[in-house]
Amino acid sequence: MHHRLIAIAIALCINFAQSHAQSPVKLANGSYRFTFYAPDANQVTLQGEGALHKAKMTKQSNGTWTYTTHRLPSEMYTYNFVIDKDAVQLDPNNQQVVRDVNNHYNIFCVAGFPADYYMERNVPHGKVTKVWYPSSINNMGQRRMSVYLPAEYDANPQKSYPVLYLLHGSGGDENAWLDMGRLAQIMDNMIAEGKCVPMIVVMPNGNAMLDAAPGESPYMQAKPEIVNTESMRGKIERAFPIEIMTYVEQHYRTLNNKQHRAIAGLSLGGLHALYITANNPTMFDYVALLSPQTTNALSDNEIRTYNNITKGIGDLVSRVPVVGNTLKNKINDKIDSYADVAIYDSINHKLATQFATPPQLYYIAVGRDDMVKHLVDMHRQKLDAANYGYLYNETDGGHTWTNWRKYLLDLLPRLFQQQ
Amino acid sequence: MHHRLIAIAIALCINFAQSHAQSPVKLANGSYRFTFYAPDANQVTLQGEGALHKAKMTKQSNGTWTYTTHRLPSEMYTYNFVIDKDAVQLDPNNQQVVRDVNNHYNIFCVAGFPADYYMERNVPHGKVTKVWYPSSINNMGQRRMSVYLPAEYDANPQKSYPVLYLLHGSGGDENAWLDMGRLAQIMDNMIAEGKCVPMIVVMPNGNAMLDAAPGESPYMQAKPEIVNTESMRGKIERAFPIEIMTYVEQHYRTLNNKQHRAIAGLSLGGLHALYITANNPTMFDYVALLSPQTTNALSDNEIRTYNNITKGIGDLVSRVPVVGNTLKNKINDKIDSYADVAIYDSINHKLATQFATPPQLYYIAVGRDDMVKHLVDMHRQKLDAANYGYLYNETDGGHTWTNWRKYLLDLLPRLFQQQ
Repeated sequence: MHHRLIAIAIALCINFAQSHAQSPVKLANGSYRFTFYAPDANQVTLQGEGALHKAKMTKQSNGTWTYTTHRLPSEMYTYNFVIDKDAVQLDPNNQQVVRDVNNHYNIFCVAGFPADYYMERNVPHGKVTKVWYPSSINNMGQRRMSVYLPAEYDANPQKSYPVLYLLHGSGGDENAWLDMGRLAQIMDNMIAEGKCVPMIVVMPNGNAMLDAAPGESPYMQAKPEIVNTESMRGKIERAFPIEIMTYVEQHYRTLNNKQHRAIAGLSLGGLHALYITANNPTMFDYVALLSPQTTNALSDNEIRTYNNITKGIGDLVSRVPVVGNTLKNKINDKIDSYADVAIYDSINHKLATQFATPPQLYYIAVGRDDMVKHLVDMHRQKLDAANYGYLYNETDGGHTWTNWRKYLLDLLPRLFQQQ
Repeated sequence: MHHRLIAIAIALCINFAQSHAQSPVKLANGSYRFTFYAPDANQVTLQGEGALHKAKMTKQSNGTWTYTTHRLPSEMYTYNFVIDKDAVQLDPNNQQVVRDVNNHYNIFCVAGFPADYYMERNVPHGKVTKVWYPSSINNMGQRRMSVYLPAEYDANPQKSYPVLYLLHGSGGDENAWLDMGRLAQIMDNMIAEGKCVPMIVVMPNGNAMLDAAPGESPYMQAKPEIVNTESMRGKIERAFPIEIMTYVEQHYRTLNNKQHRAIAGLSLGGLHALYITANNPTMFDYVALLSPQTTNALSDNEIRTYNNITKGIGDLVSRVPVVGNTLKNKINDKIDSYADVAIYDSINHKLATQFATPPQLYYIAVGRDDMVKHLVDMHRQKLDAANYGYLYNETDGGHTWTNWRKYLLDLLPRLFQQQ
């Protein structure tokens, strides 16, 4: 009985190994071969970034479709298969899957630079923790964030660390920089090579509609949105110092001053980073806007209304010092409902205050083909006109994780060097 | 410019929301309606557990396929769509996806008992951390595990906690109990209700072929295996107290005695839990075997060889006290290569020692339709014959996460009650 079971188990195991090869297969010349079984399909296309973008596969007589790339440069590649017009399938022979906004992709890395930084090596590893912190946003009660602690953190109980707050884009969440951004691997490898100082990295959830990544609460949830206007209305920026920074500085050994705080955000997170730092000019010495979406979702009319109302209420309260509690509460509620809007008000004045004592680094990176390039240009013109200093990194490519990972590699060595 | 961009953004957002509804949709009578667009398919089948198992969908004139369930009882359901014979697709309208062995599934919960325990509620949340610990297994250097700390942990720096070691099955890894098992949600909710004591839960990776879950190191990796014989050869069990428990007890505030240690494992993890506790009879007061695979992957011949060799070497070394270093090293290497095998040797004798001072709880749970039921029966016969006490929980169903989550709900209140 016992023997027979094991024999069956081993046979199953061998069969399984034979029928499910690793995918894609690396060939001797550095190209990669994709294979996908779809005997009834009329067309199969690879969907991925760069060299894998819309690559048409070729049908073989056995019902499999194949595609062989040219020699691939080092990178973390994402892909899936599109059958006929719009049926998306994952690669059944590749278990490495990440979600980006609403799509799931297989991933694989091609060794070399930069992908060697995206891969786990046998170096000291930091810890990644998912924590929930109290939050007022949309009455959720609590929201989740990811925290990376450097490998040496536990062994140095007397040491405090600088903090990088790292913000995702529209459609992302507290997992985005870990999954698509390879944050933990990049930090471990950069710190091990002495390329950046050990630091804490905090990755909050900047989606005002979701308290945490999909799956944490598997009842019906709002979906991640590609264009998430609800997260461009000031809520996230207003709550940031009050809720996120307070939690982090109370729960971790952080260096709590401007010199030891950095904030970087991609796309929507770039909007958040821009306005969080402009509204809190003494908090961050390192500001990085990566392909930033620099415009919020408020109309000029909303901002005008806000200005009129706060001005009117201010006048009223200053002129009528004794008001009943009911009226006072109503006034406070009204002020509160516009507090988020105030985040985007008077940006020129706020930038002037911020750059009166300028940050050590104000970093802007964007790809030449990026859809937000013209917005970045407008923000740069504003900075240039006022003669505010910043470091500008214009690269090839567009609004892609390929770029954002590379920007992070470029940014990290620049942080906390003036300690 | 600014206005136009926002107008486009909002339009995109509305379009997106309209064209991508939540899925599945709950109907008034408690049934659920699945919808899937596949105009060219000849057949679409739901692939899932229980009520969703191989449910055939119906094609509508607009190219979508639909299926409406009966009223669904509360549970966390997994599903995906199988088009024609074997093309598997995820639901494009449900972003909640988990991996089970080599397959990805969408998930959703139906409220009530038990699924209310699987859902994030606004109760104090514990922290989940991914850590790497030093390991000798297959020269990996380091392996990854998940650690759950109860919500109160940080606020009670003088308090130490009992530890539950929770082991996954074949094809799983350090994420399995978190993703499929909903461990963090279950712990948060059970602790908040006072149904179990606050405890640390350690979820190691018990796959000897992988240092971490797929995706952590996205070069080509070994795939998770459904029948993972390499993890049934004693390596995992031997390394457990030396590597995992040492790390945990050094890095967390743990109560380091038998009364405050529990170990539970499902399937392959049940094998590991059985032999870890039998080989370390004074370590665990709570042992839980959930649908355990109780046989290892070693042949009688391998165990016989081991017995002969260790006996022979023992005789040799005792009779020839002065041996050269080279020979000594060779002998030690030989002994070392068989040390893992020794884990499975003399189980009856080991159980006798374990039950001489019996654990507070030796818990066995299995479903009546479980493929390992006959193995569990054999193990129970062994325990019965020797009159060793245990608690037996036989349920409906088979080798499923539905059962394992329920077993955990049943088990947790029984742990650490005799403190």
